[in-house]
Amino acid sequence: MVGAGQLARMTCQASISLGIGFRVLAETQADSAALVCTGTVIGDYTALPDLLAFARECDVLTFDHEHVPGEHLAALERAAAGKAGAGQRCPALRPGRAALRYTQDKLAMRERLRALGVPCPRYAPVTDLAGVHACAADWGWPIVLKAVTGGYDGRGVWVCGTPDEAAAVLAHPVAVFAEEHIAFDAELAALVARSPYGQAAAYPVVQTVQRGGVCNEVLAPAPGLAASRARETQRMALELAAELGVTGLLAVELFAGPGELLVNELAMRPHNSGHWTIEGARTSQFEQHLRAVLDLPLGDPRMAAPQVAMANVFGAASPDIFARYEHVMAADRGVKVHLYGKRVRPGRKIGHVTVLGGDMASLRARARRAASYLATGEEGDWHPLPA
Amino acid sequence: MVGAGQLARMTCQASISLGIGFRVLAETQADSAALVCTGTVIGDYTALPDLLAFARECDVLTFDHEHVPGEHLAALERAAAGKAGAGQRCPALRPGRAALRYTQDKLAMRERLRALGVPCPRYAPVTDLAGVHACAADWGWPIVLKAVTGGYDGRGVWVCGTPDEAAAVLAHPVAVFAEEHIAFDAELAALVARSPYGQAAAYPVVQTVQRGGVCNEVLAPAPGLAASRARETQRMALELAAELGVTGLLAVELFAGPGELLVNELAMRPHNSGHWTIEGARTSQFEQHLRAVLDLPLGDPRMAAPQVAMANVFGAASPDIFARYEHVMAADRGVKVHLYGKRVRPGRKIGHVTVLGGDMASLRARARRAASYLATGEEGDWHPLPA
Repeated sequence: MVGAGQLARMTCQASISLGIGFRVLAETQADSAALVCTGTVIGDYTALPDLLAFARECDVLTFDHEHVPGEHLAALERAAAGKAGAGQRCPALRPGRAALRYTQDKLAMRERLRALGVPCPRYAPVTDLAGVHACAADWGWPIVLKAVTGGYDGRGVWVCGTPDEAAAVLAHPVAVFAEEHIAFDAELAALVARSPYGQAAAYPVVQTVQRGGVCNEVLAPAPGLAASRARETQRMALELAAELGVTGLLAVELFAGPGELLVNELAMRPHNSGHWTIEGARTSQFEQHLRAVLDLPLGDPRMAAPQVAMANVFGAASPDIFARYEHVMAADRGVKVHLYGKRVRPGRKIGHVTVLGGDMASLRARARRAASYLATGEEGDWHPLPA
Repeated sequence: MVGAGQLARMTCQASISLGIGFRVLAETQADSAALVCTGTVIGDYTALPDLLAFARECDVLTFDHEHVPGEHLAALERAAAGKAGAGQRCPALRPGRAALRYTQDKLAMRERLRALGVPCPRYAPVTDLAGVHACAADWGWPIVLKAVTGGYDGRGVWVCGTPDEAAAVLAHPVAVFAEEHIAFDAELAALVARSPYGQAAAYPVVQTVQRGGVCNEVLAPAPGLAASRARETQRMALELAAELGVTGLLAVELFAGPGELLVNELAMRPHNSGHWTIEGARTSQFEQHLRAVLDLPLGDPRMAAPQVAMANVFGAASPDIFARYEHVMAADRGVKVHLYGKRVRPGRKIGHVTVLGGDMASLRARARRAASYLATGEEGDWHPLPA
């Protein structure tokens, strides 16, 4: 796995049961996954020689993030196909470059989804303020500007209420496109897995609660989502995984409003919206990703409890979480704490908590209380970003 | 953790979620836990300098097995108490030597249990055949001879049907004692955790199915065990943990017959009878052991499904299990496979499978089929030892 953040860490943990040799390409030995992975290689994922050297020690190459440059993915695939000369042998990329492109280039993603007839917000390429004005004339303000490449976790997305705000974004040396602003009722995520053989599995559709573009809570299954709509959404995600040739996980983030669901983002890796599956599903997303990229039969994606709530833990001012960790365990023995081994910095995602049960309102309150307490030592509803 | 077998491997896996730094003292880099633990130290657990050097890098010392010599445990505790001179500082042993003694010296264990009024098989120290005859005159044949120290997984236990068989055992240079042979209906195991603070938690009592003294299957909860008897057994195990001053897990193995339950063996570490808890309980025994020895609040020991069956996977003639592994996953997506990274050797415990659900007969058949198939590529009921 290229990248050694918490997604790689939890994938490493899942690899232990499967008895699979697991390696990560980490930036530093202090990376979340590097702390727990005996197969850690230190290297730079933006440097092709580092990628090739790492890949040569693997049977399959997969990814913790979307940031490996597309030209390096292309070079890795040429090496995998034996077209890059002696000593450049390389394993299969899963997912491959053709699929990953739609997580790296958001405009290409929009164009592909439109071609496939998948409902999305209206969008248009823009290069200047006149272009934004033209969009706003149709869709009204605010207008969303999105970086074509490089955005994640709310970065690279600007909700512009006025032409001045749009002009400020356009002043950045970043290619953007415009999207209509969706006044959604809720955000949902559909997580599916697909193997090279073509086997697929869909997790229940969940609700994600974001703050400042960062996932804060996940509720599984999505409260109030009609069963027929959930099934349609799973089917759409499965079809999309097949159309795009995804191997491994595909997370589809959606806006839910009064009309049809609109696709917001795609990710092709374990996803924050699937952390609840570690305890909450018969097969965790991390095990499922490994099974999918290794072309093993997929595991049972069904829930292990009627309802599950997950809340992310963000670092706050005080770095020493140990006493708070003890308190959270003592206060609610049903809370499962996951820490990522990261040094605490204000606003940094350092862990998550999961609670299983039957009553979502109560599960959600327990998860939020535990996550807030871990961060701050207070039981309020703390988050580093405004609601 | 001293020792790096599969128990340490699965404890290492549990340490990842907790964000706890975890080290193992391994014999070789190929040990099951050493393959997955970034904190592996290679050393000899029978050599005090190796133990002390390892201990100095830890905050708490715990054990994957019972085989650290008692005099070394004593020396480690002297070092922990600051009584062993400069440079010999050492962390707390959990469990401590006083408790571990009862897993190392089975005669001392029997004497302590008798003193506590815990029901056990009748036993007597014996040094010669005349002593065995005296026991047999009271209890009848067969007579069980047990090594006072060093036995595990059926080793060090001899069921002698005749005086000749007993004489052959007595010819070994091994201290033994005699026990009456119990014609049990079933074997049970009660697993509890206790922290230094004194908090305790009890898992549901399970049935273990042994072959040749080796655990083969575990059924949770024990089928047909009356709720009142299960509660009494949990209470007895909790009291025993407190009386013996156990920190961490205590597994109590019992014989169930028409009369009262009789204690057979004790273990103070994660135990094969608790592997089902990884998926089958809200807190796995491995997480629970870590929480207990670190004096963290204990986790919820309740079951995550109505019934759980676990079957051990033993190596058979063919070492390459990959194709079989794929088949097992494809044939039954509800089977959770755990492999220990061990080289396959005939009869060696190389993994286990767990199945959750509501009908024990079916779960048990599925677990046995998967375990047999992984070992041999056939769906029969294969085991390296006779029934």
